Amino acid sequence: MMQFSRKLDIARGKIELSHGSGGRASAQLVNEIFYPAFANNLLSAGNDQAIFPSPAGRLAMSTDSFVVSPLFFPGGDIGALAVNGVINDLAMGGAQPLYLSASFIIEEGFSFAELRQIAENMGATARSAGVMIVTGDTKVVERGKADGVFITTAGVGVIQDGVNLSGDRARPGDSVILSGSLGDHGVAVMMARQNLGFDTHVESDCAALHELVAAMLATAGPSIRLMRDPTRGGLAATLNEIAQQSQVGFRLREADIPIKPDVTAVCELLGLDPLNVANEGKLIAIVDADVAPALLAQMRAHPLGRDAALIGTVVDDAHRFVEMETKFGGRRVVDWLSGEQLPRIC
Amino acid sequence: MMQFSRKLDIARGKIELSHGSGGRASAQLVNEIFYPAFANNLLSAGNDQAIFPSPAGRLAMSTDSFVVSPLFFPGGDIGALAVNGVINDLAMGGAQPLYLSASFIIEEGFSFAELRQIAENMGATARSAGVMIVTGDTKVVERGKADGVFITTAGVGVIQDGVNLSGDRARPGDSVILSGSLGDHGVAVMMARQNLGFDTHVESDCAALHELVAAMLATAGPSIRLMRDPTRGGLAATLNEIAQQSQVGFRLREADIPIKPDVTAVCELLGLDPLNVANEGKLIAIVDADVAPALLAQMRAHPLGRDAALIGTVVDDAHRFVEMETKFGGRRVVDWLSGEQLPRIC
Repeated sequence: MMQFSRKLDIARGKIELSHGSGGRASAQLVNEIFYPAFANNLLSAGNDQAIFPSPAGRLAMSTDSFVVSPLFFPGGDIGALAVNGVINDLAMGGAQPLYLSASFIIEEGFSFAELRQIAENMGATARSAGVMIVTGDTKVVERGKADGVFITTAGVGVIQDGVNLSGDRARPGDSVILSGSLGDHGVAVMMARQNLGFDTHVESDCAALHELVAAMLATAGPSIRLMRDPTRGGLAATLNEIAQQSQVGFRLREADIPIKPDVTAVCELLGLDPLNVANEGKLIAIVDADVAPALLAQMRAHPLGRDAALIGTVVDDAHRFVEMETKFGGRRVVDWLSGEQLPRIC
Repeated sequence: MMQFSRKLDIARGKIELSHGSGGRASAQLVNEIFYPAFANNLLSAGNDQAIFPSPAGRLAMSTDSFVVSPLFFPGGDIGALAVNGVINDLAMGGAQPLYLSASFIIEEGFSFAELRQIAENMGATARSAGVMIVTGDTKVVERGKADGVFITTAGVGVIQDGVNLSGDRARPGDSVILSGSLGDHGVAVMMARQNLGFDTHVESDCAALHELVAAMLATAGPSIRLMRDPTRGGLAATLNEIAQQSQVGFRLREADIPIKPDVTAVCELLGLDPLNVANEGKLIAIVDADVAPALLAQMRAHPLGRDAALIGTVVDDAHRFVEMETKFGGRRVVDWLSGEQLPRIC
């Protein structure tokens, strides 16, 4: 650990361009904010790269950038989102997440206090998920050339033999399982952003799903075709993507899709379709219909799968349509959005 | 590959918020710009993560964000920089780089044409270095909330048994080798930014150093203590960092440090010290003095080491000072900058 003549004034200090210079100020920022928050020897070795043993098996690698606005919202913040987001992308491939990188693009004038809070949330989120943030970078851009802070995480995980999940494996007859209620994250961020002040309390579902995934794989491994987390674009975008990759269609039952009453109410007021709204702690699994009931029961026993539901079926469809039987007995196509309803939701 | 009713209008089109929505527009952007540019099946499988065999040995992981301004400059662009930058961070740990991720934060209104050019440069740079960009992400923020495009790359590589490079391994008596001339990248970007129009032509040294590193390790493996690329903050920051990590000092000889006359001239005009200026295709190696002459000869036989030079020695120094014998026979301390001379140089 390096010594500096004066410690950073966390309570009142702000990011300056010099904190991105690669010089002494950069070193102090990393030493006094990131090393203590992320707390592991691979990172604090202070090399340009982290080095660790190569695990046996196949590796998964993923990355995501986070530009959410506002940075803090009920149920989470950009830091927790950045850690859980990349963990979930790895978990959806059936991987056990192991090592993360974190890179920060910070606007000049951003407060040390908020940066430290974000870093501490990242460290805590990583520790509770059993992963390490082992390497990183910090860049600073002039005032007005970014918006507070943007964070990009990347992650590496290991996949056990026999686990083969991929977006092209859905087959007609398969069941579609959703791990819980839709729209919580998007609605929580939207309400925080617009300061709507409705008399409702919706929290982001921001959570790391890898332990739920590990439990599901242990029970139903080879019968799970694929998993995916319906983030930006929501369930609608995710299922349309899979329909293209697997060359199939979907039939959903609206009555079976869990959505909290408060989320439904806010979506109605704002003119949003909850099927397009982002989630940050939910997954969909496409599974062999034979294992669906047992898998569902097991998921409901896990805190992150308590509201899991069987919401539909994979069908043969030359048009690759996602269709839904509505609560009123009709049927509608669930298309993905072509415009942007909720910019900067993650 | 998905089909869209109309192709992107690359020549005239611009990024809209919808290209970051996770919906159809996002999918089209990725399909028509990034998949063709990066061209590999791991990426175009279209999953949230890339999956590949775990190589035997130890893994290295690294990340860097790039915010360089302007995006294009003599000798390179932000895309080539983003690929070579993370390759070099892996190579400095002695790793053979294998797989990269690339994540883009794009300002609304950025042109498709420039984005495609950057993506194509990244693809070409990766291919020529023998690495694959296997996973990525794209976010879009509103006009005025970013500056064109920011790119974050992360990478994974494999380290052979017996290779052990780390910033804490420099020992008094070791030799300091620099692979070529200092300051080219920083001066090239600075001149492009300020449109200075001097009658000099300086190009960025932006290059992937992993093949030079592999050749050096093959010759002098166990006698190489550490390598590092003097990017932001230049040679001064890099050696001061190592002095802290290894608890040593350095004595450099100014007359032995290669700097091109044009770079010297521009630095004098702008009041910059070339020892603080960023490089993107140079490395310093701290090596056992016994192997330095042979290693130097070998480096000079490689196109990226043609101007390699022995520039100084590691010394015992309780103050961890980097000192330099000047050309005029004096001695000065080479401190790292506490302010910021050249913001957004990478």
